[in-house]
Amino acid sequence: MSAPRSSPAPTPSSYQSAPTRSVSVHGVDFVYRELGPGDDVPLVLFNHLAAVLDNWDPRVIDGLATRRRVITFDNRGVGASGGSTPDTIEAMARDAVLFIRALGFERADLLGLSMGGFIAQVIAAEEPHLVRKILLAGTGPAGGPGIDKVTALTVRAALKGALTRKDPKQYLFFTDSEGGRRAGRAFLERLGERTHHRDTAISLSSFRAQLKAIHRWGLQEPADLSRIHHPALVANGESDRMVPSENTLDLAARLPRGELVPLYPDAGHGGIFQYHDEFAAQALEFLER
Amino acid sequence: MSAPRSSPAPTPSSYQSAPTRSVSVHGVDFVYRELGPGDDVPLVLFNHLAAVLDNWDPRVIDGLATRRRVITFDNRGVGASGGSTPDTIEAMARDAVLFIRALGFERADLLGLSMGGFIAQVIAAEEPHLVRKILLAGTGPAGGPGIDKVTALTVRAALKGALTRKDPKQYLFFTDSEGGRRAGRAFLERLGERTHHRDTAISLSSFRAQLKAIHRWGLQEPADLSRIHHPALVANGESDRMVPSENTLDLAARLPRGELVPLYPDAGHGGIFQYHDEFAAQALEFLER
Repeated sequence: MSAPRSSPAPTPSSYQSAPTRSVSVHGVDFVYRELGPGDDVPLVLFNHLAAVLDNWDPRVIDGLATRRRVITFDNRGVGASGGSTPDTIEAMARDAVLFIRALGFERADLLGLSMGGFIAQVIAAEEPHLVRKILLAGTGPAGGPGIDKVTALTVRAALKGALTRKDPKQYLFFTDSEGGRRAGRAFLERLGERTHHRDTAISLSSFRAQLKAIHRWGLQEPADLSRIHHPALVANGESDRMVPSENTLDLAARLPRGELVPLYPDAGHGGIFQYHDEFAAQALEFLER
Repeated sequence: MSAPRSSPAPTPSSYQSAPTRSVSVHGVDFVYRELGPGDDVPLVLFNHLAAVLDNWDPRVIDGLATRRRVITFDNRGVGASGGSTPDTIEAMARDAVLFIRALGFERADLLGLSMGGFIAQVIAAEEPHLVRKILLAGTGPAGGPGIDKVTALTVRAALKGALTRKDPKQYLFFTDSEGGRRAGRAFLERLGERTHHRDTAISLSSFRAQLKAIHRWGLQEPADLSRIHHPALVANGESDRMVPSENTLDLAARLPRGELVPLYPDAGHGGIFQYHDEFAAQALEFLER
């Protein structure tokens, strides 16, 4: 289904060493990384609030890339990508579609985490022919309960992190149990594995635009999910504080072809990172079915 | 001037190894550390927003303690001290006075940094006989310009710190020059030198009470500094973003016995940490004059 593409270099063997490339999207450079086999339908990943390329768990990417061509990218205004981050999910979705087309693809599988899952839902609804299958993790439908609390939770976690000299993701992505704390520490360590050619951190203004977009998404009228006819795999931890896990159950129930991965035990918003091996296997099985 | 006190152990030789002790203040345990020679008038230190015992630069403490008895403490509700942090500077000053008296002192020199400097000014004005000399660093009078912006600046720095995985004190306490960044990194490293028996981080609720108190201080009517007749040494970096340096100049000009240390070049709110050797020498000269 995709247009011919020239691959500028051999496929890297791990996300840690994947080069950061860029592609011009109507004159604005979007940065991305890709790895894994296959030339047809890639798996394009949409990341969470404040995240840049280096916020993807390398174990999840490497696991998926054993059998799929995986593409991560920074949307407009995020990390090292140019332009200004828009303050609606719908505009972010339009930018992402332009990016996918700029790479020469006419069809893609989408994996969206949290805010990235909002974007993936909009793309599936608005550009159904561009999408083959969708995977939604730690996310919820427009108007889902608790999503309008993300800003307050995030600011609180950032302050708490500053006071305790800890990464706020420990609080926001993992449970407060012994196992959750351990999983959080291990995840944060994995995020530091790449020491060269790291991405730029998101700017405060782009971060604020994302917060505004998430807030709006949370306050929207409940979404009509019956418009999304794609096979959809839905996953999360059982104790998500950011996008409460009931949103995950609601997505699985209301998406016409929704399928729920049993919620990961003693896990939160970062459930797919905590259970990286399990999730990668489940995602591959779903994609190859 | 001071009541007899029993010293429970030999004086420690450095702040890094100073034990954390506690004293009951009307039934609430306040934690503190002390070191340095002398049994009469101690130098009691008042720390900044969010700070606990471990936020004092060990070089400043060790420098002062070469010739003075230095006491650091956590005020009510802060770090490992019991009780709830009040939300006015005046109430914090009353708690601090109770603490000094609980240790058996009838007279003390006061060194206050930032919010700690607000508290020291109130004590000097309200309990003039308790105070011998005051040292004010990175601070300003009630109603001083820009002090009402501290909350917004702090939240912004905490978010920026979370996004860039840096300690917000780098932005809040140091300049953005090469020298400022280097000084900030060195300071943060020094704060980590003590690895055993560290203090508890401040709670989010105590931090919020402090923010409220600082905000109120910034919005008060300009203070009548002519009430403070103590010798007063005033110091700061020339580029303080938190409590703008003009506040330092104003204090020096309006305190009847105010004396200005020339503002430290290429330094901010953490100027006395960046210039720890210079400041310790200047403070000792002032105290021993």
